[in-house]
Amino acid sequence: MSLIVVGSMAFDAIETPFGKSDKIVGGAATYIAWSASNFTRPVKQISVVGGDFPKQELKMLEARGVLLEGVQVKEKEKSFFWSGRYHMDMNTRDTLETQLNVLGNFRPVVPDNYQDCEYLMLGNLAPSVQISVINQLKSKPKLVVMDTMNFWMDTAMKDLEKVIKKVDVLLVNDSEARQLSGQFSLVSAARAIMEMGPKYLIIKKGEHGALLFNDDKVFFAPALPLEVVFDPTGAGDTFAGGFIGHLASKKDISFETMKAGIIVGSAMASFCVEKFGTARLKELTRADIDNRIQMFRELTKFNIELSE
Amino acid sequence: MSLIVVGSMAFDAIETPFGKSDKIVGGAATYIAWSASNFTRPVKQISVVGGDFPKQELKMLEARGVLLEGVQVKEKEKSFFWSGRYHMDMNTRDTLETQLNVLGNFRPVVPDNYQDCEYLMLGNLAPSVQISVINQLKSKPKLVVMDTMNFWMDTAMKDLEKVIKKVDVLLVNDSEARQLSGQFSLVSAARAIMEMGPKYLIIKKGEHGALLFNDDKVFFAPALPLEVVFDPTGAGDTFAGGFIGHLASKKDISFETMKAGIIVGSAMASFCVEKFGTARLKELTRADIDNRIQMFRELTKFNIELSE
Repeated sequence: MSLIVVGSMAFDAIETPFGKSDKIVGGAATYIAWSASNFTRPVKQISVVGGDFPKQELKMLEARGVLLEGVQVKEKEKSFFWSGRYHMDMNTRDTLETQLNVLGNFRPVVPDNYQDCEYLMLGNLAPSVQISVINQLKSKPKLVVMDTMNFWMDTAMKDLEKVIKKVDVLLVNDSEARQLSGQFSLVSAARAIMEMGPKYLIIKKGEHGALLFNDDKVFFAPALPLEVVFDPTGAGDTFAGGFIGHLASKKDISFETMKAGIIVGSAMASFCVEKFGTARLKELTRADIDNRIQMFRELTKFNIELSE
Repeated sequence: MSLIVVGSMAFDAIETPFGKSDKIVGGAATYIAWSASNFTRPVKQISVVGGDFPKQELKMLEARGVLLEGVQVKEKEKSFFWSGRYHMDMNTRDTLETQLNVLGNFRPVVPDNYQDCEYLMLGNLAPSVQISVINQLKSKPKLVVMDTMNFWMDTAMKDLEKVIKKVDVLLVNDSEARQLSGQFSLVSAARAIMEMGPKYLIIKKGEHGALLFNDDKVFFAPALPLEVVFDPTGAGDTFAGGFIGHLASKKDISFETMKAGIIVGSAMASFCVEKFGTARLKELTRADIDNRIQMFRELTKFNIELSE
């Protein structure tokens, strides 16, 4: 049940209709690690940060069972920085500023003691970095899950196609599924994308839930109807962390366990959006998580007797 | 288990990205009757048509157990006509033409033998017509369900508020819920709308499913992921017909039965969109419906053991 997580660890500055954050800690791998470590430990992290990344944040992750041997600290450089502004619907956002900094020339190195990897979570990152990690692994993991985004479809499609071919589960949102496949219907899009390599496809639809496809099977997970989505940053990464964390804890990659993993991921994402950054994730207890999962159960449970 | 359905019976001409229909039979009450009559009979119809409305269509409805005593036939006038064009996402449409015709001065009359009404389904129609039917009933129905749309919020808000105060269940789509409440969050919108009168609110989200609210309870019903939505016209009415038809057949109006009703409604709507107009609804068997409901079960079923 060894899990490797690859992704950015970074700073974000976020504006939403409800408020504005300072420069706070974010990054895909940060959210994934906070989320997954509720279910499986250790989480073997691969990332890169600058000298400006708070040592205290690294210590908090270590205390959660996150191994940092694969996290390069470039003391003389600066961490990746993103700032953005969300619109009222929280599904669309404008990027205000991106500073690649240490991420610009990131060459990931897989430490020797990460080599027993069974579960590999490739967070959203340059496809060339994602494939480099796959290629460094001496034995094929039991399951490779990959997140990506439209930016890489626009700028690095050839690399992206190569990684997609090598993964078991791909995670994208609905507009990215349409862009990647050239199909409007999500059912057609899913079929086209599964022909590109992954046996499983998860389409995230934000407040409208998520879909899991495998062959001709499909599962529809709800999103929790929330009064306030305070800050959606990291929700997709937190979802991914809950998903793979659950699979790793169950040591099972069946469709049934993936369905449960999507509910766990959705529950974790529903916490993430309640506060800026990782703040909410840091204060969760296992009882909080179980209660939230129970709410998801109640949310979709129904009983119909078919024709008498 | 006596059910009254009020609404338009009309002609539509529809353009979608997949094709163009002739002038075909439609109207809210037509779809509701075709859908509800799978679950409960008789359906006591209240509507108005012109001399141009096909007698054959009326005979087909009668053969399904739809009583037409409350349907006025104005031989010298023309039926209501709507034509519209759907965009690629099938959630937005442009109205190309509306001819009110007989609907312009419709005065509904509730026949004496409709007076034992337990379930009243007010299809989308002028609020003044909806309230006239409520006022003609000598005893209060067990459940009044009302559908409406943004057009009435724009043009007849005062009348609309009066009807809303008198109904148990209101059906609107997500943008209408936002317009009616002035709230962006659907949870906040639901709370505001339930303060306007209805104890239950159903928010239809098209391909994203539907939400049912009551007090602090919420249920999330999925939509079936479809490869092709051929024609969404009437899907909302068909949903309403399945919903109230199921409740009438169960003789029960608990939250649990309403949840099942929403699944039944969603299953019926998923058939409706497969062909133009009522074509698909006319050919359904009970086995088709049971199979579709079973697909909805599979779509959302999951199992998670909470912390061991």
